[in-house]
Amino acid sequence: MKISELSRAAGVPIPTLKYYLRERLLLPGEPTARTQAEYSDEHVRRLRLIRALAETGGLKLREIRTVLDAIDEERLSIHDLLGVAHHALGPAESEEDRSPEARLARKEVDRFLADLGWRVSRDAPGRRALARALTTLRNVGWDAEPDVFEPYARAVEQMARREVASVGESGSRTEAVQQAVVGTIVFEMALVALRRLAQEHHSALAFPKRRRR
Amino acid sequence: MKISELSRAAGVPIPTLKYYLRERLLLPGEPTARTQAEYSDEHVRRLRLIRALAETGGLKLREIRTVLDAIDEERLSIHDLLGVAHHALGPAESEEDRSPEARLARKEVDRFLADLGWRVSRDAPGRRALARALTTLRNVGWDAEPDVFEPYARAVEQMARREVASVGESGSRTEAVQQAVVGTIVFEMALVALRRLAQEHHSALAFPKRRRR
Repeated sequence: MKISELSRAAGVPIPTLKYYLRERLLLPGEPTARTQAEYSDEHVRRLRLIRALAETGGLKLREIRTVLDAIDEERLSIHDLLGVAHHALGPAESEEDRSPEARLARKEVDRFLADLGWRVSRDAPGRRALARALTTLRNVGWDAEPDVFEPYARAVEQMARREVASVGESGSRTEAVQQAVVGTIVFEMALVALRRLAQEHHSALAFPKRRRR
Repeated sequence: MKISELSRAAGVPIPTLKYYLRERLLLPGEPTARTQAEYSDEHVRRLRLIRALAETGGLKLREIRTVLDAIDEERLSIHDLLGVAHHALGPAESEEDRSPEARLARKEVDRFLADLGWRVSRDAPGRRALARALTTLRNVGWDAEPDVFEPYARAVEQMARREVASVGESGSRTEAVQQAVVGTIVFEMALVALRRLAQEHHSALAFPKRRRR
């Protein structure tokens, strides 16, 4: 297909598309004339993946490149690749993680995860996120210990077991990889949205309405 | 306390603090001299709430103001306030929600939520987020129906019931309000982090490591 057809099929404007080509996020098409090239379904799939990472995952171009490079690196296992995606999604380390309160929270979170029996790498960004959550609760005057997260840990452990099992089902590595990375992002967006909706539902049942919105 | 003490107690630099005062996010202190004022624990609490909304919730100043105004509006019930916080957290409507695919996904999501029996307002941002998640799955070639979200809906319904019940327990309205708003943000950050950690754990069990990270 021509570049205009590729643009329509993937829902990506031509200037953006040319930018991805220049940045080598997208491989060039097969040249058919001096200024024309032929693109394939593989290009469409790649563009949709880039869109999912950018629009749904909120990843920056640099982070998208890291994830795409990992996908292209055939020697990486799906486990390694999930790690790359998680690191790209962050949060990255920042000044706030180095305060005494943050360091204490991090130690407590590490102990909590060890007690759960979870095998997670020392530098998993999730540890940092959890420590920040704990610190924030304490900053607003909540006398919280890491076990306040335990019901959530139990709930997501069930989810994660099912999710990881389903990744194995897809045929090719490319499909499995795409499912692992996109699934991580899309289902967490869905999870957060559903939790807020469920809160609204239960809050409607629990609290009387005093005013119409 | 003086402004320097307030800055230390809340962990907010003085220039930021003065900015909040100018923007009326923070009420002025009690004047003690022409250029000095006395601040209270109430100021510390307020600043910590602002920090939680900004740093953990990622809210912009305009959105923080909306939430703070709602907290100060005593006539709003906790249910209404939760709605204000959810709207501030977004996602806001955008161009992508108006494509034919997005509109179809939204209709399916609305039907899915009705089938769950959840009472949620027509304009809840969660509906939009869920429709986007569905559209993204389809864009990457996943033949998904809304019921792919059902296990997640069931899991969060349990959480939300417990969360809403615990909000009622705190004494004052201010505490309940703070718990509802901060709790929504902080526990969803924790939930997402825990899900990724649980994925890493189960993926370590399921997939052989080919390479050390």
